[in-house]
Amino acid sequence: MERQSLSDLFSFLKPHQISESASVREQHSHDESYHRGPWPDIVLFPESTDDVVRILQTAFAHRIPVVPFGAGTALEGHVVPVKRGISLDMTRMNRILDIRPDDFLVCVEPGTTRLALNDALRRHGLFFPVDPGANATIGGMTATNASGTNAVRYGAMRENVRALEVVLADGRVIRTGSLAAKTSSGYNLNSLFVGSEGTLGVFTRIWLRVFGIPERIVAARAEFPDIPACVQAATALVGAGVPVARIELVDARFIAAFNRFKGTDYPVVPTLFLEFHGSSDGILHDIRLAQALLGDEGCTRFVAVTDEKERTTLWEARHSAAHVFMAQYPGLKHMATDVCVPLSVLPAAVAHAHRALEEHGMRGAIIGHVGDGNFHCSIALDPDDPDDLARAKAVNAEIVAFALAHGGTCTGEHGVGIGKRAYQAQEHGPALEVMRAIRRLLDPHGILNPGKLVDPDE
Amino acid sequence: MERQSLSDLFSFLKPHQISESASVREQHSHDESYHRGPWPDIVLFPESTDDVVRILQTAFAHRIPVVPFGAGTALEGHVVPVKRGISLDMTRMNRILDIRPDDFLVCVEPGTTRLALNDALRRHGLFFPVDPGANATIGGMTATNASGTNAVRYGAMRENVRALEVVLADGRVIRTGSLAAKTSSGYNLNSLFVGSEGTLGVFTRIWLRVFGIPERIVAARAEFPDIPACVQAATALVGAGVPVARIELVDARFIAAFNRFKGTDYPVVPTLFLEFHGSSDGILHDIRLAQALLGDEGCTRFVAVTDEKERTTLWEARHSAAHVFMAQYPGLKHMATDVCVPLSVLPAAVAHAHRALEEHGMRGAIIGHVGDGNFHCSIALDPDDPDDLARAKAVNAEIVAFALAHGGTCTGEHGVGIGKRAYQAQEHGPALEVMRAIRRLLDPHGILNPGKLVDPDE
Repeated sequence: MERQSLSDLFSFLKPHQISESASVREQHSHDESYHRGPWPDIVLFPESTDDVVRILQTAFAHRIPVVPFGAGTALEGHVVPVKRGISLDMTRMNRILDIRPDDFLVCVEPGTTRLALNDALRRHGLFFPVDPGANATIGGMTATNASGTNAVRYGAMRENVRALEVVLADGRVIRTGSLAAKTSSGYNLNSLFVGSEGTLGVFTRIWLRVFGIPERIVAARAEFPDIPACVQAATALVGAGVPVARIELVDARFIAAFNRFKGTDYPVVPTLFLEFHGSSDGILHDIRLAQALLGDEGCTRFVAVTDEKERTTLWEARHSAAHVFMAQYPGLKHMATDVCVPLSVLPAAVAHAHRALEEHGMRGAIIGHVGDGNFHCSIALDPDDPDDLARAKAVNAEIVAFALAHGGTCTGEHGVGIGKRAYQAQEHGPALEVMRAIRRLLDPHGILNPGKLVDPDE
Repeated sequence: MERQSLSDLFSFLKPHQISESASVREQHSHDESYHRGPWPDIVLFPESTDDVVRILQTAFAHRIPVVPFGAGTALEGHVVPVKRGISLDMTRMNRILDIRPDDFLVCVEPGTTRLALNDALRRHGLFFPVDPGANATIGGMTATNASGTNAVRYGAMRENVRALEVVLADGRVIRTGSLAAKTSSGYNLNSLFVGSEGTLGVFTRIWLRVFGIPERIVAARAEFPDIPACVQAATALVGAGVPVARIELVDARFIAAFNRFKGTDYPVVPTLFLEFHGSSDGILHDIRLAQALLGDEGCTRFVAVTDEKERTTLWEARHSAAHVFMAQYPGLKHMATDVCVPLSVLPAAVAHAHRALEEHGMRGAIIGHVGDGNFHCSIALDPDDPDDLARAKAVNAEIVAFALAHGGTCTGEHGVGIGKRAYQAQEHGPALEVMRAIRRLLDPHGILNPGKLVDPDE
């Protein structure tokens, strides 16, 4: 489509809501992963539900692809506009519309970031627990069913998104879910849209469940001689029902990278990073229990971190893991595997992944939300080197095959985007055709984020 | 359709899997509510997924309605075969197929009852927490997204059904969800089928999350001078984050009915029935905290119940509430309202419901899962007296209108069935058309439980 005519179609927007500049289009052509594709033809910045409705009505009428864009922190190429068209940048819809402390509910626009939301909640003694590390937008987190370090205690986005306002491909506006804590009314469209990666509709309002800030928060590091002992100990702790708020495996390679870039002096061994939330009394009981149990499983040193500054450093280290790992390989790009398996399978799955990295000689390190059975291999690769890319993809494929053979999923939290499409048929079998039929039903021309999630290869 | 030919269509089943007897058909024509309708033409008893596939293929080809039937304990006419056809009795598919203690997972056939499952889990130190009171089948509980007294701590069915095997209307078999604790792969069909009330498919296998039996369980009764104080105290307790496993409002009328039928001598005042789950140390802390907090909110007496027999009596009393209430009105039938509202709205919603019962002079009593914002008015009515029925429906309508006006839902846990259909358009707005489109997509001839949930009036 000719460039000038495209911007004319959206002349109902104000000039500052439209960009065709090369730098803005380039910025909207990729996320934080190795996936690359074309630039969008145009970037639009809606400021209201009504803007989104008019943009989608126009795009629907003219069959123009629309790719919602948040903070650009996705890891599977979700925001790459593989068929060009519109990148729909939601970041100017970033108002926090309502905070209801008595109901533990908040209503936000999708461009609100996780950290901005938590800043606003803090004065009410509340926090939003879902924490993927990156300062993603709530819209993006909803679109991928993001989770992260706190999910073992508080659940993923799906457990915490209570209602949505969604603009469908044809511009219809619907509301899904309920502000009530539970409902058995109608079909549960809410959970269908959470994790739909922009392929079923564009979110314009999101109601979230929030939580009271715990009376006391204590972090801890638990060191282990090797990865199998570390994973086994984590699964034993969760299996015993010890209430942890975070339990993260960090392998020695990540620890070495932290130390180098952050000036810490953590021992370079496989480590569990833990966090406990509770009352002043209860939390000490939980920590003592955890320490004893991890000791039985081979923990060589357990260090409780009560100081808030030290705790912040610890979680900054954890959250920057992928960044500091990648910083060791200037010019290379990041691939993250993301399988999630039943807890009893986790030790074998991590051992298998470790072997796969070694066998293919890949630059990789392992980190994991081990309380959920979810772990990542961060792999540094050169996407322009076919050999390197092929080896990285082979590692990913082997890790996914192991997970699927053991009742797991190819993606625990990053979502499918481009990178996990190849595994959808294998994971879902005949259910994939039902998913595709729902996609066609709600987006008959396939304008919403085409080429992602359940879309077939062409 | 002529009777004889119908049974011939299913001659691939064994004779004991088919019944056309009047008593069996009558038994499959109703649930535990006031809803009444025709009898099914035939009752079929599948014993395997393959039986279900062949039955649905045949029904699909011949456009015969199919109504899945479990324990018959529904409360909104879900199993009433309003268009006759087949009642598909799932109770012979009641095997517990797999218990995986290390993964906190179990796989059951849909006819497994809640109590049978918990009997089998006990020897592994596990339990399944969702507890609607009745000894429903897991299939029926999945179909209505049932919850009950434990949901405030453990969630409803939707939070605890991890994967499903589903036979679609045309006989296709799909698998939804994953055995992993979380997944962002594909669309979340799992949550779409949970709560679909037999209108999207028939469940043949259900994978559930289960929990370790708590180290210590203590129940308690907290007495209050009036209902507003009782509800206010419950919302304050939950708002303060005190970890309760159950928190149930029982009004004085229910208490009086218990005492009469169960020989208890509970004071006839509005009461909270509570339960705490935890470690021996932690639970005492929780109970002390709860007692202090409820005292501040006007609790006149707090009685902890540590003895297991006494605790069992207390929950038997709670679970038999509707039965003992109805036993006071021989010949009358039961209507239960089921709204769920944001917690801050609950005191006003219960007060409003109480007034509505009084104003219409209905025989009613109030009980509630107040930690979730969910409460029921049990109403005794004569469905053959148009005046009585009209007044009961007016009370229900007023209670629902209040809930919907305050961000709530018309049904927190019983589901829509026949009785809440009238409120679907009001609650869901334009989303109802999306629900109906999904229904038409998966069941183009509308053979699966027609006339329920999202189906339009005809």
